[in-house]
Amino acid sequence: MSSEYKALTLETLPERLVTVESISKRVGSNPSNWSVSEIGDGNLNLVFIVKGDIGKLIIKQALPYVRLVGDSWPLTLERAFFEYNALVRQEERDPKRVPAIHYFDRSQGLIAMEYLENYKILRGKLILGEKVSGLAEALGKFCARTAFRGSDFFMKAEEKKADVSLFQNNVELMGITESLVFTDPYFEADRNHHTSGLDTIIKILRDDVTMKENVQHMLRKFTSNCETMCHGDLHSGSIMCTDTETRVIDPEFAFYGPLGFDIGMLMSNYLMAFFSQPGHRTNEIELKDYQDWILEIIDKTIQVFYQEFSYLWKNERTGILYPRALFENQGHDSSEALNHILKESWKDAIAICGIEMHRRCLSLAHNADFEEITDLKVRAKLEARNLLMGRELILNAGSMTEIQTVLKMAKVFNEKDPL
Amino acid sequence: MSSEYKALTLETLPERLVTVESISKRVGSNPSNWSVSEIGDGNLNLVFIVKGDIGKLIIKQALPYVRLVGDSWPLTLERAFFEYNALVRQEERDPKRVPAIHYFDRSQGLIAMEYLENYKILRGKLILGEKVSGLAEALGKFCARTAFRGSDFFMKAEEKKADVSLFQNNVELMGITESLVFTDPYFEADRNHHTSGLDTIIKILRDDVTMKENVQHMLRKFTSNCETMCHGDLHSGSIMCTDTETRVIDPEFAFYGPLGFDIGMLMSNYLMAFFSQPGHRTNEIELKDYQDWILEIIDKTIQVFYQEFSYLWKNERTGILYPRALFENQGHDSSEALNHILKESWKDAIAICGIEMHRRCLSLAHNADFEEITDLKVRAKLEARNLLMGRELILNAGSMTEIQTVLKMAKVFNEKDPL
Repeated sequence: MSSEYKALTLETLPERLVTVESISKRVGSNPSNWSVSEIGDGNLNLVFIVKGDIGKLIIKQALPYVRLVGDSWPLTLERAFFEYNALVRQEERDPKRVPAIHYFDRSQGLIAMEYLENYKILRGKLILGEKVSGLAEALGKFCARTAFRGSDFFMKAEEKKADVSLFQNNVELMGITESLVFTDPYFEADRNHHTSGLDTIIKILRDDVTMKENVQHMLRKFTSNCETMCHGDLHSGSIMCTDTETRVIDPEFAFYGPLGFDIGMLMSNYLMAFFSQPGHRTNEIELKDYQDWILEIIDKTIQVFYQEFSYLWKNERTGILYPRALFENQGHDSSEALNHILKESWKDAIAICGIEMHRRCLSLAHNADFEEITDLKVRAKLEARNLLMGRELILNAGSMTEIQTVLKMAKVFNEKDPL
Repeated sequence: MSSEYKALTLETLPERLVTVESISKRVGSNPSNWSVSEIGDGNLNLVFIVKGDIGKLIIKQALPYVRLVGDSWPLTLERAFFEYNALVRQEERDPKRVPAIHYFDRSQGLIAMEYLENYKILRGKLILGEKVSGLAEALGKFCARTAFRGSDFFMKAEEKKADVSLFQNNVELMGITESLVFTDPYFEADRNHHTSGLDTIIKILRDDVTMKENVQHMLRKFTSNCETMCHGDLHSGSIMCTDTETRVIDPEFAFYGPLGFDIGMLMSNYLMAFFSQPGHRTNEIELKDYQDWILEIIDKTIQVFYQEFSYLWKNERTGILYPRALFENQGHDSSEALNHILKESWKDAIAICGIEMHRRCLSLAHNADFEEITDLKVRAKLEARNLLMGRELILNAGSMTEIQTVLKMAKVFNEKDPL
């Protein structure tokens, strides 16, 4: 391919990519037999499924602007470079959890990757009320392994620093998180929109100085604490599942950040799925059963995360932090240090969880979980529950040391009518 | 000059550097009239004073190894590149506090800079009992200005990230701090040495698991919290003074790290000067007077730091953190957020202070303050006071919210005979 960027189209894709051997050998050498469809439903990129005589794969290409907004909001193609680098690291740190990569072209912002046949976006399944077995195990381990193995607990110091140096250049995508997640919800930002009826709730949030301080303390950690590589956008739209299998996609927002970041954002999106359920089903028994299942998933995910992280602490602590020379080799236990780290990261996760619950209803990119509820009165009521619980999480992150406290709180807010 | 690295010598320096216009125009165009002397007394580099018909300047050149140890410990010449970059930023952030830079040659690891005539290394003055007026104001402001203006409180996010990316490559010098400061003191590291008689004290430190955990929590912040550019080695050997003027030199350990780092290391070196005084003067009145002066300097430095940082918070908060749009522009005060940040950074500073007090008596690079005390029994006693107070600081960093508590503790330990 030419090195000059050109967005692919359904028509140009076969002739442009058939010359790439690692692609044609997986799809087929005759481009006239390729069938191409565009399935990008995200906010940023083109995503094609390509099928040919031999097989299928996904072509993901960055556009030079934010797809959700249009070319009035330019966005670097380099995000594909960071996505590629993140996928490579995630594959190392938790094998087989992300799609296999077959080809990367930096100047075209293009990645060819494994087609996850029969997988659906988790968010869609959560809206439909479909359960996934093994979901919590997969994602609890993914978060723990990528967090631990991307940090100074495990990596060689020079490799960790080189990685931090590299990912600090993912400036534009970190900038999106910095404004859309941490800032815009809390003032009249141009790109904000919200369901009508929420004004009183929004006033409560913006009048809460202590809460806004806590949000900004968390933003400070986002911009300054580069302890491990985070996926950076681990919501239910970045997860694909069958009934029994779970994979993680779309790490273009990857950055070196706080180790509680991914688990907090994930938990947040589960909680939004939980709160939105009454907008998607009316049968009380089905509703309760599925909401309970979501809370179980959260509970189990956190348990698995702790177990796996603790296992890695004991068995793979080869980095410069908390070296064995200072603890085990002197007959001293390091588990109190581990507890301290987990407790601190859990606090961060809770705060991030609350912030994500806010921005998904108030800032630019809303969640389909709420957005697909057509009855605006119902939607506003459910979003209000979600927004107010988010506030409680941000205010009380330090004292909510148990996941059970969070889950009980969700059940309480699920009964409220705050409007 | 050739791009191939070659260490300068007294003999080769004039002919090699006279061809550099920015140097010869400040020294003189006739190299036979140059007089050169080597004054490097640090642990790492060559330092020449060059005098000629027109003027004088300093040539600092990195050696490809650690001078203190010899060529068995290779060390990158690139440290001069980071020193140069740090000096440029410090000059922007606190003008006239660091030497003016006249020339930089990356491949030679060479910086030509202002000769600070009539200035002496502060450590030497502290050993001699000489006072410096304006010392606290100068360094309190330097620490506050570089901390604030090198952070996301002030910088453009993309410039801050580019800077973090750059300085993450200062791997070898950060590695020295990571091992010599945070790790070696707490186990039998090869490069350790200590005054005889301290074994019981060292056992207390190494048996204290909670203290070692706290040290490692701080190392975790050192490797992961890149909130501002720190000098990285701000001890009294990196400060030059006349009786009334103060300048800061030698930032080759510069890194983006916790904003309490420099102030903590500075305070630590003052406290070591304080504890070592009985080894340098016997007149009780002079001793008390000078020790009191050192404590006053610490007190005043911290006050100035807080005042200046708070001033900058109010007047120069142009970065993405704690934006006015969320606070002042909504009629909300941001001073609680500032207090939180200062409190957290102060806790870090206290912990760093204690750790530095340990490593300077137990690890590789000791302080002249203690090292020049020839009576080893006296030296051991004074070092023991220092080591045990360091432990208290590390253990109680979170609760020592007032500088007065630290200063009172210093007076108490100054009376102890721990051996």
